[in-house]
Amino acid sequence: MADFMKSEVFLAFSTYASVMLVKMLIMGPLTGYFRMSRGAFSNPEDARAHGGTDEESKKKLMTTNPDVERVRRCHQNDLENIIPFIGISLLYTLTEPNLSTALMHFRIFAASRILHSIAYLVPLPQPSRGLCWLVGLGTTFSMVYRVLKAGMRL
Amino acid sequence: MADFMKSEVFLAFSTYASVMLVKMLIMGPLTGYFRMSRGAFSNPEDARAHGGTDEESKKKLMTTNPDVERVRRCHQNDLENIIPFIGISLLYTLTEPNLSTALMHFRIFAASRILHSIAYLVPLPQPSRGLCWLVGLGTTFSMVYRVLKAGMRL
Amino acid sequence: MADFMKSEVFLAFSTYASVMLVKMLIMGPLTGYFRMSRGAFSNPEDARAHGGTDEESKKKLMTTNPDVERVRRCHQNDLENIIPFIGISLLYTLTEPNLSTALMHFRIFAASRILHSIAYLVPLPQPSRGLCWLVGLGTTFSMVYRVLKAGMRL
Repeated sequence: MADFMKSEVFLAFSTYASVMLVKMLIMGPLTGYFRMSRGAFSNPEDARAHGGTDEESKKKLMTTNPDVERVRRCHQNDLENIIPFIGISLLYTLTEPNLSTALMHFRIFAASRILHSIAYLVPLPQPSRGLCWLVGLGTTFSMVYRVLKAGMRL
Repeated sequence: MADFMKSEVFLAFSTYASVMLVKMLIMGPLTGYFRMSRGAFSNPEDARAHGGTDEESKKKLMTTNPDVERVRRCHQNDLENIIPFIGISLLYTLTEPNLSTALMHFRIFAASRILHSIAYLVPLPQPSRGLCWLVGLGTTFSMVYRVLKAGMRL
Repeated sequence: MADFMKSEVFLAFSTYASVMLVKMLIMGPLTGYFRMSRGAFSNPEDARAHGGTDEESKKKLMTTNPDVERVRRCHQNDLENIIPFIGISLLYTLTEPNLSTALMHFRIFAASRILHSIAYLVPLPQPSRGLCWLVGLGTTFSMVYRVLKAGMRL
């Protein structure tokens, strides 16, 4: 076991899975930053902690803000795409692929998701964001194909 | 290690995990399809790319549509239920269960989630969707019980 | 392989991963309970099944309720934080850490997330919820650091 876990392919999986999860986790504090700088909270206790001492000012701090909603949609898209990638790429890694093929999949996925977030948050005109999303999805499906080709039991 | 990864139980896990993740990933493009066919976007740059060239037509394309919201709730329910299943069923597979017991869990879960999506998207009258959700949840809890019975360290 | 899967560190991972996923899964039925007791549904077929027999009473049951929305935000925060923890802690466990260090990470994370939900649902005044969230996030990042220090392949 220890041998496999020290193999180059497993190290590559471990590295890219960590990087992608960190990228996704960062969206949390980023949402918090936008909520605080824009003064747009969804909990009354948060509004109170940020200057909403009386009812009127509290109500004013409990709005939806387009920048906050944008970060939240970007975070949600990460949940919908990065988490399946982690599961599929673990299964893919266990099929013992070539290091170069595996690295190609991991690198393309990671680049597509980082560019996706940039395209979402700047925002860049479409279809830049859509293309990044499609490339990431295609990479995941390519790994699914290799996992199922390596063996199936329904 | 390679031996275990080629065991029937692991192949069954790998197959059902892949199928469930693919089922969940498909909700993404499906949301995109409904957004485009219904003309209901949440980003101004998406509305612009689909005919919202002036301010007025752009605003008209940035509404919420009941069909889009329905697909999104279905997708969210998949995230809340399929991802925990992947984690629990990996741990369950590592306890080396009987192939037939494992397959029974995986098959019931997969069927319940596919029927759940059909019940959500048609939509079928309740309690069809609720029952599908409960069956999937029960299957997951049955696997949790077996994982914790096999060994615990708190 | 079987040896590693019976190691104390792996058992600890398996136990805490299961407990955290169960904690997250419980938010689903909890949302259902609040929807039913508050009479606040998002699907017409759900409203119909809970007394919305005519158009007017159905419309009245399809509102948003602050308690329902609070549980949903709590559930979403679990998805955003507990799922990355499962992935990272699996990779961390595979680096074969000391049992005591691993247990410390798992216990702090589990406590922080259970307290986070209590602080969210009571609700307790801020910064209690914010601190619980930060402690959980810090624990996850500490494990990321140890995973990447153990080996990287970009």
